Amino acid sequence: MRKRALVVADVPAPEPGPGDVLVRTLACGICGSDLHALRHAERFVETARRGGNAFVMDLGRDVVMGHEFCAEIVEHGPETARRLPVGTRVCSRPTLMRPTGPQSIGYSNDNPGGYGEYMRLSEALLLPVPSGLATEHAALTEPMAVGVHAVAKARLDTDDAPLVIGCGPVGLAVIAALRLAGVRPIVAADFAPRRRELAVTLGADVVVDPAERTPWSSWREAAVYRDSSRTPALPPWIAGPAVRPAVVFECVGVPGVLDQIMAAAPRGTRIVVVGVCMEPDTIHPLLGIGKELNLQFVLGYTPDEFAATLRHIADGAIPTAPLITGTVGLDGVADAFTALGSPERHAKILVTP
Amino acid sequence: MRKRALVVADVPAPEPGPGDVLVRTLACGICGSDLHALRHAERFVETARRGGNAFVMDLGRDVVMGHEFCAEIVEHGPETARRLPVGTRVCSRPTLMRPTGPQSIGYSNDNPGGYGEYMRLSEALLLPVPSGLATEHAALTEPMAVGVHAVAKARLDTDDAPLVIGCGPVGLAVIAALRLAGVRPIVAADFAPRRRELAVTLGADVVVDPAERTPWSSWREAAVYRDSSRTPALPPWIAGPAVRPAVVFECVGVPGVLDQIMAAAPRGTRIVVVGVCMEPDTIHPLLGIGKELNLQFVLGYTPDEFAATLRHIADGAIPTAPLITGTVGLDGVADAFTALGSPERHAKILVTP
Repeated sequence: MRKRALVVADVPAPEPGPGDVLVRTLACGICGSDLHALRHAERFVETARRGGNAFVMDLGRDVVMGHEFCAEIVEHGPETARRLPVGTRVCSRPTLMRPTGPQSIGYSNDNPGGYGEYMRLSEALLLPVPSGLATEHAALTEPMAVGVHAVAKARLDTDDAPLVIGCGPVGLAVIAALRLAGVRPIVAADFAPRRRELAVTLGADVVVDPAERTPWSSWREAAVYRDSSRTPALPPWIAGPAVRPAVVFECVGVPGVLDQIMAAAPRGTRIVVVGVCMEPDTIHPLLGIGKELNLQFVLGYTPDEFAATLRHIADGAIPTAPLITGTVGLDGVADAFTALGSPERHAKILVTP
Repeated sequence: MRKRALVVADVPAPEPGPGDVLVRTLACGICGSDLHALRHAERFVETARRGGNAFVMDLGRDVVMGHEFCAEIVEHGPETARRLPVGTRVCSRPTLMRPTGPQSIGYSNDNPGGYGEYMRLSEALLLPVPSGLATEHAALTEPMAVGVHAVAKARLDTDDAPLVIGCGPVGLAVIAALRLAGVRPIVAADFAPRRRELAVTLGADVVVDPAERTPWSSWREAAVYRDSSRTPALPPWIAGPAVRPAVVFECVGVPGVLDQIMAAAPRGTRIVVVGVCMEPDTIHPLLGIGKELNLQFVLGYTPDEFAATLRHIADGAIPTAPLITGTVGLDGVADAFTALGSPERHAKILVTP
């Protein structure tokens, strides 16, 4: 990532340390965070460091990104149990376990990610890919686990009515996870017709184009209590019909969206921030105060959520096929980054080194 | 509030409508929100309107502010039950119940607040002041209820260790409410020595001057588990000793503080935003994401919390005497607003019209 450009280069294969295995990447998804990280690299590193992350990458050195991968075992390093033989297809959280604590794979100078041919993974984190599950679908475990985790962190009550803002890969993962959790109706908003189609395929009940009408009016129609015993505190001709509590998933990750949501949200709304905005953002705290809003920022997933997501993909409970809109070799990564800027064509592009 | 200046003027006494009583203000505290509202009036109104509040005051007309009051009943309006006789000292939430919904008292063109001689209150909301409780202390019910509500909304677990940022009236109310809830140790930070003294008087266990050291280092010392059975996930020579979860109360309400807290907070921290910032504020969402922070914005109190606060003040469980640092007549309000800009001299100034 020297001079913040994507280059194809020969780099030495990483050495598997104690407890590590060497793997060959079979497929690796391109994540929106990688696009953001390339574009806002200095800010990303500076903010992460300010937040107390001591292990941020050095932008003066190369970085092999890629953290959504399926790989096959090539070689076992020292001090490994070798339960899974060479050739086994595996998924793993993009984390290396080290005596000094976990290290990132893909946002690191020392731990190359899945846009490279070879990676070093921790044997303890390996999950074998169920036979019959396509490698490309297994590679979607990581991004889909992000949705599963976001929905878990939202701690939804039976009454809560979700609204998903943004139907890129993050929003689509949230929609799939909401559907998996049996939360209905799911209202989702995106400017791009193709993404709204995908949202429906993944499980959205109502989709809305924010250029046509505010997502909140669609949400309100969908969130009205059908149970006529519910009566609002004020007469309905003043307050309107009783409406479920709102839980909004912010899945855009660009400055300004959070404040827009805070302005439009009803009182008591919980906002789950899943989109990864790497720039400074302006909010009006008075909007949050006046309506007692709650903001839950989320990141990643737990080990259990990651493993459950792989199982759900294998048994079809989390659909992944519609998400894969392209596949490129290593020399196509730079162009794929550009193509992903256009929401009309692509959801997820996989790299097959 | 014409031309956004405080003026002393003769205005007609309000007419009590159906269900209202006319009261004479006995004492009314000056709230930091009034200082902010005077200074940032246009922004306050614009942001509130953007957030969906249809009943914001018209800045072209006069406003009688003041929402922290103790008053006495002068006259009962039509359709009142008259359970409390004329002359009874009362407190009330600064809200008028109307068929179209609640209206604000004190941030309204039509419902004058406690910086005026007379107010109109809803009979249904009146709470008689217990005999033996000084009027000045009863007038602190409103600001102290803000602390009680903030602590309730924080939904503290037994393990949570609080940190109060800012020891003005809001921070002091939070400290009193934490002490009332039996949450210890309470760590509180303020630049002003006088305010740190008051924090100790109100119940803080540890106070810190942020100019001397970061509040977080004091908090960390206080929040270490004393129970030696607690072991951190990583060895203590790497991770340090196991520390309780952090719950921060933001009680400053000026731009920049929220982002500072987000940068310094440990992973999983819950931030309760009690200070009322009326300006736009810049945050770095990446700080919240990387540490999965939670922001709970809070405002006001429930009717039950308000009534309980008055009882707690009466029985001494919430101390109020140390907070009252000055009393002025109507012609002293403008100077009092200026004096409250200096944190060394004042906590709460009461207006006695």
